[in-house]
Amino acid sequence: MTASKLTVEGFADLLATHMPQVGKAGIRVAAMGEGTCTMRVEPSGDMIRAGGTLSGPSMFALADLALYGAVLSRIGAVPLAVTSQMSINFLRKPPVKPMVAEARLLRLGKRSAYGEILIFSEGEADPVAHATGSYAIPAQG
Amino acid sequence: MTASKLTVEGFADLLATHMPQVGKAGIRVAAMGEGTCTMRVEPSGDMIRAGGTLSGPSMFALADLALYGAVLSRIGAVPLAVTSQMSINFLRKPPVKPMVAEARLLRLGKRSAYGEILIFSEGEADPVAHATGSYAIPAQG
Amino acid sequence: MTASKLTVEGFADLLATHMPQVGKAGIRVAAMGEGTCTMRVEPSGDMIRAGGTLSGPSMFALADLALYGAVLSRIGAVPLAVTSQMSINFLRKPPVKPMVAEARLLRLGKRSAYGEILIFSEGEADPVAHATGSYAIPAQG
Amino acid sequence: MTASKLTVEGFADLLATHMPQVGKAGIRVAAMGEGTCTMRVEPSGDMIRAGGTLSGPSMFALADLALYGAVLSRIGAVPLAVTSQMSINFLRKPPVKPMVAEARLLRLGKRSAYGEILIFSEGEADPVAHATGSYAIPAQG
Repeated sequence: MTASKLTVEGFADLLATHMPQVGKAGIRVAAMGEGTCTMRVEPSGDMIRAGGTLSGPSMFALADLALYGAVLSRIGAVPLAVTSQMSINFLRKPPVKPMVAEARLLRLGKRSAYGEILIFSEGEADPVAHATGSYAIPAQG
Repeated sequence: MTASKLTVEGFADLLATHMPQVGKAGIRVAAMGEGTCTMRVEPSGDMIRAGGTLSGPSMFALADLALYGAVLSRIGAVPLAVTSQMSINFLRKPPVKPMVAEARLLRLGKRSAYGEILIFSEGEADPVAHATGSYAIPAQG
Repeated sequence: MTASKLTVEGFADLLATHMPQVGKAGIRVAAMGEGTCTMRVEPSGDMIRAGGTLSGPSMFALADLALYGAVLSRIGAVPLAVTSQMSINFLRKPPVKPMVAEARLLRLGKRSAYGEILIFSEGEADPVAHATGSYAIPAQG
Repeated sequence: MTASKLTVEGFADLLATHMPQVGKAGIRVAAMGEGTCTMRVEPSGDMIRAGGTLSGPSMFALADLALYGAVLSRIGAVPLAVTSQMSINFLRKPPVKPMVAEARLLRLGKRSAYGEILIFSEGEADPVAHATGSYAIPAQG
């Protein structure tokens, strides 16, 4: 009913198999719900920018994965879903601390899905970035 | 007049100083014009995805840098310009070969700039991605 | 504190003075909060499309006004704030019935504001459209 | 080959039949090419805003129609293609004079199309707005 079709462990396994670079980058699945997914990243290496902030592409990557999780929470483990469009607004400079991205689906069709993502510095109330994105879902055999 | 305020070497130096991870990721400045910039990336490591394609975040990062170069081509070396918004559409799956991102400014104001970026697999006519983005330009002292 | 700097009546007056076409199009201010605004439209004339649905530009216009109201709820009656960017995703075909657009600010800076808007067919739970947008705020004299 | 599958007259007829409000708003088809379309609008009535400029929603509507034309130039007269996403950046305030929107497709798939649109005040070199958008193409019977 209102449960995710993919557990936190299920999504973590799928990522470890198909996108091993995700775990190496310090990104973890934090929570899965029905149409929602929260990802968390521990900053390291190339994510950290001069001046003590985190890179835009690292926020983009986190948002993209959280939305992917939100899609899979509704359709189950479909590794071939691919991002077709993503738009991100950078709202505040994040300090060098863990970030969490909270995604929720706003529409799930047969061939595409659309949702939004808020990214926070862990423990803060105001988002550091807001993104929206679409996934293309392959036709089922 | 119609020349870039920053040479290829000047932009490369600025990146080496402020964003050393760019060079490590195989990204190079290929060309600078007045309001234009072309970046090139040699795929490696974490950019490469299962199935023989290149990751979305790596295309995002390349587009972001190319637009940054296009902004600096008009205002000179201002390291504090920051991306405020970026939107990317993934049009075709890129094979595992070098990509080039060609950015051009469409508007330069005192406090912000806006432009677009086409990303190609090197030597191909049809773009693999199209992006638009805005940069915030800090007030000059 | 947590009240709007502009009442429903205040925003309605500003629109009647500066944008009289809004009222003629059947658009009304429904609610104002701190950083939020709800607009409602009664469909008529050119908004209605063949096949019994409402036009995309009419949803765009409604989203734009709701975000404008959300900006003014925080800064007061500043008629010169102008939209700099707006992105809209059409999620479901709206039937020919009233629509409401609910906007909320996600960031308010000195010179710009950013927020998102959900548009619903009145009384429905699933949004017909989702938009994000930025406003440029003129420097105060 | 490299010709439009729909002539200027063909697209004008389709609009007159399915979207009569377009002509009433002063919007005309100016040119069709392979994957391109130019629309022109003569400003009137509700498009004109206080201060002597043109409304954002009127630019959005013009961009949307130009992209629709660019899609139909490749697939022929398919009235059911619908906008799924549109993003617009307002670059300069247009004066109260005719505007032209030039759209070109960047990708045409079986079920969706993506392109970009530049809007100019007639006779000016710098665009007043830039937009990108996606159309969903219905499955053929």
